Amino acid sequence: MAGNSFGTLFRFTTFGESHGPAIGCIVDGVPSRLALDEAFIQGFLDKRKPGQNKYVTQRREPDRVQIKSGTFEGRTTGTPVMLFIENEDQRSKDYGDIKDKFRPGHADYTYQAKYGIRDYRGGGRSSARETASRVAAGAVARRVLETVPGGPVTIRAAMVQMGPHKIDRSRWDWAEVDRNPFFCPDADTAAAWADYLDVVRKAGSSVGAVIEVVASGVPAGWGEPLYDKLDSDLACAMMSINAVKGVEIGAGFDAACLTGEENADQMRAGPDGKPVFLSNNAGGILGGISTGQDIIVRFAVKPTSSILTPRQTVDLEGQETEVLTRGRHDPCVGIRAVPVGEAMMAVVLADHFLRARALGQ
Amino acid sequence: MAGNSFGTLFRFTTFGESHGPAIGCIVDGVPSRLALDEAFIQGFLDKRKPGQNKYVTQRREPDRVQIKSGTFEGRTTGTPVMLFIENEDQRSKDYGDIKDKFRPGHADYTYQAKYGIRDYRGGGRSSARETASRVAAGAVARRVLETVPGGPVTIRAAMVQMGPHKIDRSRWDWAEVDRNPFFCPDADTAAAWADYLDVVRKAGSSVGAVIEVVASGVPAGWGEPLYDKLDSDLACAMMSINAVKGVEIGAGFDAACLTGEENADQMRAGPDGKPVFLSNNAGGILGGISTGQDIIVRFAVKPTSSILTPRQTVDLEGQETEVLTRGRHDPCVGIRAVPVGEAMMAVVLADHFLRARALGQ
Amino acid sequence: MAGNSFGTLFRFTTFGESHGPAIGCIVDGVPSRLALDEAFIQGFLDKRKPGQNKYVTQRREPDRVQIKSGTFEGRTTGTPVMLFIENEDQRSKDYGDIKDKFRPGHADYTYQAKYGIRDYRGGGRSSARETASRVAAGAVARRVLETVPGGPVTIRAAMVQMGPHKIDRSRWDWAEVDRNPFFCPDADTAAAWADYLDVVRKAGSSVGAVIEVVASGVPAGWGEPLYDKLDSDLACAMMSINAVKGVEIGAGFDAACLTGEENADQMRAGPDGKPVFLSNNAGGILGGISTGQDIIVRFAVKPTSSILTPRQTVDLEGQETEVLTRGRHDPCVGIRAVPVGEAMMAVVLADHFLRARALGQ
Amino acid sequence: MAGNSFGTLFRFTTFGESHGPAIGCIVDGVPSRLALDEAFIQGFLDKRKPGQNKYVTQRREPDRVQIKSGTFEGRTTGTPVMLFIENEDQRSKDYGDIKDKFRPGHADYTYQAKYGIRDYRGGGRSSARETASRVAAGAVARRVLETVPGGPVTIRAAMVQMGPHKIDRSRWDWAEVDRNPFFCPDADTAAAWADYLDVVRKAGSSVGAVIEVVASGVPAGWGEPLYDKLDSDLACAMMSINAVKGVEIGAGFDAACLTGEENADQMRAGPDGKPVFLSNNAGGILGGISTGQDIIVRFAVKPTSSILTPRQTVDLEGQETEVLTRGRHDPCVGIRAVPVGEAMMAVVLADHFLRARALGQ
Repeated sequence: MAGNSFGTLFRFTTFGESHGPAIGCIVDGVPSRLALDEAFIQGFLDKRKPGQNKYVTQRREPDRVQIKSGTFEGRTTGTPVMLFIENEDQRSKDYGDIKDKFRPGHADYTYQAKYGIRDYRGGGRSSARETASRVAAGAVARRVLETVPGGPVTIRAAMVQMGPHKIDRSRWDWAEVDRNPFFCPDADTAAAWADYLDVVRKAGSSVGAVIEVVASGVPAGWGEPLYDKLDSDLACAMMSINAVKGVEIGAGFDAACLTGEENADQMRAGPDGKPVFLSNNAGGILGGISTGQDIIVRFAVKPTSSILTPRQTVDLEGQETEVLTRGRHDPCVGIRAVPVGEAMMAVVLADHFLRARALGQ
Repeated sequence: MAGNSFGTLFRFTTFGESHGPAIGCIVDGVPSRLALDEAFIQGFLDKRKPGQNKYVTQRREPDRVQIKSGTFEGRTTGTPVMLFIENEDQRSKDYGDIKDKFRPGHADYTYQAKYGIRDYRGGGRSSARETASRVAAGAVARRVLETVPGGPVTIRAAMVQMGPHKIDRSRWDWAEVDRNPFFCPDADTAAAWADYLDVVRKAGSSVGAVIEVVASGVPAGWGEPLYDKLDSDLACAMMSINAVKGVEIGAGFDAACLTGEENADQMRAGPDGKPVFLSNNAGGILGGISTGQDIIVRFAVKPTSSILTPRQTVDLEGQETEVLTRGRHDPCVGIRAVPVGEAMMAVVLADHFLRARALGQ
Repeated sequence: MAGNSFGTLFRFTTFGESHGPAIGCIVDGVPSRLALDEAFIQGFLDKRKPGQNKYVTQRREPDRVQIKSGTFEGRTTGTPVMLFIENEDQRSKDYGDIKDKFRPGHADYTYQAKYGIRDYRGGGRSSARETASRVAAGAVARRVLETVPGGPVTIRAAMVQMGPHKIDRSRWDWAEVDRNPFFCPDADTAAAWADYLDVVRKAGSSVGAVIEVVASGVPAGWGEPLYDKLDSDLACAMMSINAVKGVEIGAGFDAACLTGEENADQMRAGPDGKPVFLSNNAGGILGGISTGQDIIVRFAVKPTSSILTPRQTVDLEGQETEVLTRGRHDPCVGIRAVPVGEAMMAVVLADHFLRARALGQ
Repeated sequence: MAGNSFGTLFRFTTFGESHGPAIGCIVDGVPSRLALDEAFIQGFLDKRKPGQNKYVTQRREPDRVQIKSGTFEGRTTGTPVMLFIENEDQRSKDYGDIKDKFRPGHADYTYQAKYGIRDYRGGGRSSARETASRVAAGAVARRVLETVPGGPVTIRAAMVQMGPHKIDRSRWDWAEVDRNPFFCPDADTAAAWADYLDVVRKAGSSVGAVIEVVASGVPAGWGEPLYDKLDSDLACAMMSINAVKGVEIGAGFDAACLTGEENADQMRAGPDGKPVFLSNNAGGILGGISTGQDIIVRFAVKPTSSILTPRQTVDLEGQETEVLTRGRHDPCVGIRAVPVGEAMMAVVLADHFLRARALGQ
């Protein structure tokens, strides 16, 4: 209700500020007897970890997760799984400049307007640091999805656009995603992005990105018909990630340009009695409910507003001034959003798996 | 939980199928002592009503709303407002063709996969007819928004793209929106759309659209920081509307192409001590919380899948066949989505108004 | 959130005032393909119906339920079930006396304090008339419970105390419950209550009661461990019924007087590998979770405050005055609470059945 | 949803097992700018702390609370307050006896039936140790209640019955409550209880208790009318405390024995335009909404089932056996329930304060 929980049956609640002692989450609604240990979760956190290459923020955080409750002898017990990550790189620093000035494009002004008080150290609660908790919760969700009958459900994500530069979809290769620092599924584009982002980084500037998340193996029939539609929940989930400004499913905004003949995915009889679709403009969701095809979601990430060029703003007293964000920054914050998008997909699907099961579906 | 409610504090729950006896909703969380009668709500329903011109479905529904509870002597009492709309145009008809065949692009197959049973008459629960309930609930939400201190909050929507044809934003005139059947804010474009849609309609085809919803007068500080962000909730709300496949806030997907310098909206001192923003790429929302600028949301509507060209599909038995949707249809279902988008914006804002007030904000 | 919904996965939302045009509810979370028609629901409403004998209010309401959505060809479709009951006995009457005066023991003053406006006709929203919606929703819940593996789950209730007069539990006979107007399981006590209540009724007075609700056939393992405990939810459910002031499970308040040796229900090996308990002080619930024994809940109903003796009160202006409730009244409103208690038990159990199933339990 | 959260607007979610590394909670919905530090919360935890005298369990837990997020420079920021308590007294011990045997009266069997796995060390999640988290959350709720206009709201609790021995209400003195180890408001009774409980303790037995919680200063108009009634929520809250088997409001079960004339609390004009009630059988709640009188709730706690007498039971294999709970135990677990009852009252009231404020009440 106050905006720190996500999900209904499978549900996590996060806590923590960028420069407080710790961040983490409580994951509730976890079925019992699933194998779960810290190493499994750590693997996903490591993908998102800052400081791994020159293209992401140089904050050095080991992001070591501890399970504080909910497992016994390596298996979940059905009680809440508490995941705890200590903040280690809280480097002593002069926050003077951003303490009193609202950084344009950041949540500084809106937090002040809403709460009348603000933990100005590194963005506080609005920092992208919070997404580590999401990735940890997403790892638990993946364990739940491993139990889907007829599975496995596979969730993967890739960056498909950096700044104005899109990938060439004809060269899409999932194996490439882990071979470059951009989660790019196209090796040639990845090389081009490296050059491009070097220029951006050296200029102290930043660029946006588009991420695509794909879930395969989701059975037909997940989702609710009107207000908890699978696509509504995914839109909510992805838009909740820091810096995201747009979400689309399947053909998305391009669907506006299609005719009914072009858009509707025709069906043929499949080998197992289930229909085979001749296209996937629906992104695997019709009427809010999964069709059995791949679920395809894309989201747009704006460029981070922490840049080295001074910007016009006002301060706490309403006086006009300029502000400039020194120190560590992310030339393309969309990179770290890739594993976060995967995690949010996992959580939404785990939730709808439980919901469908509740109704005997 | 089962997908028929929307909102947290201000919350509505809808019921009804396309060809059942009635549709409607219960609106809960309505503050007491607001003026509310059927005529006020009817005004909004009339905007959405089918059968008003040749560009929308010819189903003839008066959509006459009745208030069954929650008001006394013309004012709300704080108890649930029940809004009831009888279905009158349930014309006797042979549903034989769609009874057993899954129409591509419709929810026929997914409902069958999920529920194992399906009210095939006119789309049943997945019909756009359900959106009348949303418009009715949205009217109540507007009454709530009239009580915002420092208001009024104004909510307007327009169609900004039909098929591939976008409006010319330099000619935007809100007054035009009520003068053409497309809610188009640009008279010249509206004329061109009329010709275009005539061709589409006569061909028995359909096209998609993009709608823009704008809320003015929203104070800074509404929204929650992470998972009930104002933009998350708007994304969820708009994606829940039938046939919507994409949602964006402010610069939206174009933000991916911007640099940090271009994207972050700079601030100057305003006359009343509040900042004035030099641009609105954020669409009025930073960190999930309103900035005081206009809230701007766009959503893409796919073309309706009810078209006169036979399409390949399968039937209940899994046999391959063709299907063709005869009778009344909507060449651009996006038209009727305009008042629905307004209604969903009103509901989301009314909800966050109450939530902010709960926390003393 | 605003107090008109109950349940989480199986959930109903009610609307309607005592003297408005209609009352009813939307039941959501109903699994598909259950047999459901109006006659089935009507059977339960008829048990609760006023005007059936001299011991209950003489308001003449047929309470005829109509299903407005959610079923197709006699089976549920998985979409919301809307149950609609028109108010027919809205007899024209002078409400002058209670329009401005707060009746002691009623919610008149608190509604006025909360909402600043009040539908004073017959209690408005706070009238026991609302419980008809609960009984209707409870009937749907029973259909859900029919699908419990290893069932059937049986829910029955009886009045076990009227005023100070308790039943003799050694003569408990469930068959008696339907043979007297008090739902009393002991024929001798029923006869004594008839004489007693005649005196009360003729004096224009009223008395309280205690109701016991028993669910048999509930498998072990339903309920959640801490805050959605089966007993917490039952306490919430029963306390939400009009005029209820106390709830207890199993030994209840008497458990305070027991020693640990007396209280803890010992176990022996049962025929099917499940334990057999040697007593049931726990009322079938340990740690919030069902044991497989009978679930036993009792609740106390206060005497209705509509009596023929003038009482001291104040009016809307704060002036001291007296008030007396003329016309139809209930000498023991607890009688009509019996089927309501059954309905609430059914709803709580249906909800927890779905919740357990969601988690694969 | 999975039973580890309580509250709607003001809401806490707990985690942790008796013998895991830590317990604690995330408190969400906390208004910003409230003074809050660890010392304030610690004061309430110290009241509940085990090991303080011979009448409570001898587990030695400092229960030192750490605030991990949600405050900045001693004030709340509006972000989630994370409260963390390390378990220190996890003494190495042989759990052999209870590892495989179900202790009668405990949740051993039901957890096994529900989850198929069980952390048998000291009760795991079902241990009363979890209530430390409630007390911590309750302290935060008290801070919220300090901001109620027209306050202060005062919350106090006392034990009013131990085993069969009730206090003498004519000697009620709140000041006594802090002077004896039983939170007893009557010094003479406290002395008698000391002798009585010594006998019980030495016999390795245990007894139940009744606790009364009283909130003063609650304004009229809090609560919701039907399903989130103030009394429903209190019943749910108190019944969720370990070992509670009954809850009553005001006259409670005794109301069943009253006539309408005796029960309804009459009103006279008060000095400030508000009514003065001549009695408080309603326990400060009518129609689910506060009257402005004291809110009075009582709950019954069963005797702990950890006793030194062997009891008949079965084991994991379904074989008949006996079990005996050695080691530290609580002769009257109701004693430690007193501060927990206060905490739950604080949470319910803080929640309804925010809810009323949301609706402009």
